[in-house]
Amino acid sequence: MDSRPSDPNAGAGAPLDGEFDLIYRYFARGGANGPGAGVILGIGDDAAVLRVPEGADLVAAVDTIVESRHFPERSDPRSIGYRALAVNLSDLAAMGAKPAWATLALTMPRADAEWLGGFSRGLLDLADRHGVALVGGDTTRGPLTISVQLLGFIPRGEALRRGGAKQEDLLAVTGTLGDAGAGLALVQGRTTATTERAAELVRRFEYPTPRVEFGLAARGIASAAMDISDGLTGDLPKLAAASGLAAHVDVGRLPLSPALRASATVEQARDWALAAGDDYELLVAVPRQRFQELAAAAARTSTQLTVIGELRAGSGVTWSSSGRIFTPSAAGFDHFR
Amino acid sequence: MDSRPSDPNAGAGAPLDGEFDLIYRYFARGGANGPGAGVILGIGDDAAVLRVPEGADLVAAVDTIVESRHFPERSDPRSIGYRALAVNLSDLAAMGAKPAWATLALTMPRADAEWLGGFSRGLLDLADRHGVALVGGDTTRGPLTISVQLLGFIPRGEALRRGGAKQEDLLAVTGTLGDAGAGLALVQGRTTATTERAAELVRRFEYPTPRVEFGLAARGIASAAMDISDGLTGDLPKLAAASGLAAHVDVGRLPLSPALRASATVEQARDWALAAGDDYELLVAVPRQRFQELAAAAARTSTQLTVIGELRAGSGVTWSSSGRIFTPSAAGFDHFR
Repeated sequence: MDSRPSDPNAGAGAPLDGEFDLIYRYFARGGANGPGAGVILGIGDDAAVLRVPEGADLVAAVDTIVESRHFPERSDPRSIGYRALAVNLSDLAAMGAKPAWATLALTMPRADAEWLGGFSRGLLDLADRHGVALVGGDTTRGPLTISVQLLGFIPRGEALRRGGAKQEDLLAVTGTLGDAGAGLALVQGRTTATTERAAELVRRFEYPTPRVEFGLAARGIASAAMDISDGLTGDLPKLAAASGLAAHVDVGRLPLSPALRASATVEQARDWALAAGDDYELLVAVPRQRFQELAAAAARTSTQLTVIGELRAGSGVTWSSSGRIFTPSAAGFDHFR
Repeated sequence: MDSRPSDPNAGAGAPLDGEFDLIYRYFARGGANGPGAGVILGIGDDAAVLRVPEGADLVAAVDTIVESRHFPERSDPRSIGYRALAVNLSDLAAMGAKPAWATLALTMPRADAEWLGGFSRGLLDLADRHGVALVGGDTTRGPLTISVQLLGFIPRGEALRRGGAKQEDLLAVTGTLGDAGAGLALVQGRTTATTERAAELVRRFEYPTPRVEFGLAARGIASAAMDISDGLTGDLPKLAAASGLAAHVDVGRLPLSPALRASATVEQARDWALAAGDDYELLVAVPRQRFQELAAAAARTSTQLTVIGELRAGSGVTWSSSGRIFTPSAAGFDHFR
């Protein structure tokens, strides 16, 4: 099973023999070398056989990224592989779940050894970092589309849901917002920045940090959580609606990175932070009296945590800036708008 | 959660509001109305939360179908939805697993209400028939590509693997082979048949029967199993190699349906049966002394079962016809050949 080349570029230019070889050559690894707890049967049969630990529930997420839609054409394949898994890790982080196993549905126009080497390295390096085993997959020919389904565990009854927030809970976000939006704008030539800042922002788009450790640490403290994939203006209304509450955000409190502040006007930075999406930070609600506990959990996991607003009675989301009503100019990213 | 319209065409022409609504409108159903055993949290959060029964292992499969590659353009959306799930049910059948939960990654060029109505009906009707709950999904815009990941259960240690066959075991297949290949040729106008026969063969391509009940019944009797998705010439070598054996097939014993026999020359029918793929029948190995038990399991589940050959010492696959060596003319379907 351990047919992943130690140097993924070693096979560049070599003919690829077909689907069976493809999966084996780039993605199958022996259980001894990597993650694989609970993998009874991995890649190579009609399906994988997996063992969920006693007392745990299974958590399952699926996310797809499509060329030209979620990443520009000719993106670095290592970033594509990384992001395909990262966006799913972010979903599990938002549940407070521990990731364990992934399957990969990879549709691509042709089997290019060099591309596959980079893609598999990006995906598998991140998988290793989070103890995730790739247990199955399917490769098909077609326009570049990657779906990863990620499975993980959570102690029974402890999942962080979107709908658990209570009135007067604080709203907080991890990390900084808007960097990925700026990074994408840079990649697409829609904006410019100094080389050093640009590299930092582009990296935030290409290699978002899924907040897995923070999600685990927030379990039992936060009252609700979700990941911000479609921008705060797109995602916050979902958390508020699921909790049956209104939400209010002070946009002046949105955490902006030094790189973003140095690269854009305040208005542009705020727009990206509100609506650009792709940050994959976590949005959490927490009872006021437990905020210090959550802040300690964030510190323990080296995660920046910023209060941006609160939950209120009612419905919908309101925004303010310097004490005045504020209306975001851009809607959150929506694949069918 | 129960927002699936009772008449899926009711919303035809209505504007679709975005990803969130899309998933809800067509795919979310309350647990009370359909399958959903073990679904703690279904569609609508960052991930689903699921409970695997005590003593069971989890079985996970993923398969993707792409327009123009796995089905012709402008195919009936109901058939596309059906097949997207059926090909995965077939993988679980090949493991002897009981299907339980599915996630859907649906990439499509536009959100068309009528198309989505047909697609969701095809997928959900088949899901209902097998007690499968759709627990999560992701809709993205792009060329039509559908990945389903299917989860199911199996009692610990009882999975039917490809590698379990022993020397002198019999090789058998369920159903008939070649019908789907003929059906696709008819759809594509590459061949003709009488209207009645044509409809039957096209139906076999558009609505393959996953052998789930037979797979469950074969557990503990068959020594190895896999599903025939890429044609016998493509798939049998994998079972033989996984078992460390050679396989021999008498092509004269390949089960051909009356519709296929009536619609094609013997040579053409045999070629489709050998190499066309898309039949989603099961290929099983069984110890000779247990064949009658397996035949009884097949009868109990209303499944045709035909012995086509045997496993032998050595490696590779050999074929014979009327006692003479036979060389198949077409290689099995391989997405990257």
